[in-house]
Amino acid sequence: MLTISFIGSGNLAWHLAPALDNVGFIVKEVYSRNPKHAEALTERLYQAEVKATLDFSTSASSIFIIAVADDAIKEIAREIILPEEAILVHTSGSQPLSELQFAATTNLGVFYPLQTFTKSKKIDFKSIPVFIESNNEETSLALITLAKAVSNSVKKIGSEERKAMHVAAVFASNFTNHMLTISKDLMENNGLSFDWLKPLVLETINKGLSTNPKQAQTGPAMRGDLEVLDKHLEFLKEDEAVAEIYRLVSQHIIDQHAD
Amino acid sequence: MLTISFIGSGNLAWHLAPALDNVGFIVKEVYSRNPKHAEALTERLYQAEVKATLDFSTSASSIFIIAVADDAIKEIAREIILPEEAILVHTSGSQPLSELQFAATTNLGVFYPLQTFTKSKKIDFKSIPVFIESNNEETSLALITLAKAVSNSVKKIGSEERKAMHVAAVFASNFTNHMLTISKDLMENNGLSFDWLKPLVLETINKGLSTNPKQAQTGPAMRGDLEVLDKHLEFLKEDEAVAEIYRLVSQHIIDQHAD
Repeated sequence: MLTISFIGSGNLAWHLAPALDNVGFIVKEVYSRNPKHAEALTERLYQAEVKATLDFSTSASSIFIIAVADDAIKEIAREIILPEEAILVHTSGSQPLSELQFAATTNLGVFYPLQTFTKSKKIDFKSIPVFIESNNEETSLALITLAKAVSNSVKKIGSEERKAMHVAAVFASNFTNHMLTISKDLMENNGLSFDWLKPLVLETINKGLSTNPKQAQTGPAMRGDLEVLDKHLEFLKEDEAVAEIYRLVSQHIIDQHAD
Repeated sequence: MLTISFIGSGNLAWHLAPALDNVGFIVKEVYSRNPKHAEALTERLYQAEVKATLDFSTSASSIFIIAVADDAIKEIAREIILPEEAILVHTSGSQPLSELQFAATTNLGVFYPLQTFTKSKKIDFKSIPVFIESNNEETSLALITLAKAVSNSVKKIGSEERKAMHVAAVFASNFTNHMLTISKDLMENNGLSFDWLKPLVLETINKGLSTNPKQAQTGPAMRGDLEVLDKHLEFLKEDEAVAEIYRLVSQHIIDQHAD
């Protein structure tokens, strides 16, 4: 059975390491810049121990998963000392495979689960699409074995496609969530409950995902109702940044639907 | 039992009129600028007939619901001829009650169901919050009776609050949906399937609604990862409008989370 070490103990490692453990892989070691965080993650695992340095030369693991902030991957790839034949992967949507090119192994890959992770929220890994990239067939097979064990949806894609997907995911996830944040602030600043908007949000998302979001678009911008847009901008005038987002997104909706 | 006439046969009337019909009210008449649209709506109703003009002087209805585009409400309120004691309401989130002030009745109100409606998509009216406003007690009671019959969530709010809520709803619904549209285009323009993002979107929305969207924010802007933001902007450089939305929303996330 494949034995795995984690470098990083953030939100992704927090969910991925136990998911691998639970399907029979052995997560042996967890390294983190902050040993307390590594310690907390090992407590979620059967056999894992905290690793204090990046010297894995005597490690029994065959796969090393870097799950750290994007800007720390390259440095870790340079510094990490690996046993022979080791496979080194990162888990980033935005970074190319080449981010690992100066590592002391020739078996390189990417293992990218497309989901938003928070430590406090349990998640079913089976439903998360996992995207695989690698620089040789053997690594590819190992990563596919790993991915299929935890996910029902495994695909091979290249670095450029993954970058496109990551940008798309920022709009679909980070920006939709930020629209909810702005909306909640507007409600609460006017003494209204954000709860009242929940049926609307759920229906919007269900409709957008089940049909086609462009066809499902509604609202004043979609209707080209400039009078309402002006009223809304007047209403938002004390928060310049939010007004500018309103103006820009509305204009883009108008332009798209004027085609 | 209250008898009702509709002015307008768009997306809202399409769902509201049958919902009222189904709980025992009698929708008697449907007027639309386009008589074919009125005809199509009457076919969804038990007893309704198409009304060819705005002269309702001999109508048996006691409540007249204007469900038309926002910019047409005022003109209809001026033109409509009503029987004595009639209640006249509009259904707009963005327009004040005073939009009806030149109507030939003193019983004025607003009946605003907060939801996104499309004709082709069935919807459970019971779960839709309905917001009521009126200029006298009798009208208020009639509208509350109507609203409670079709919805489990009925609230009285004033025109200013309703406007704030409507702006918030644009962000929570129209703009989240537009983020999905941009995302889908990015995926498909790069040969990727939008379906792959669905688990991410559902998890994002569930998390944002069940906890607090501001606390649930993730992504490069939230982490202040300027290197990734630059890469994404570089990736988007051929679509200036989308790049500008990316820049502006990311900056707002950065500013909010730098507090």
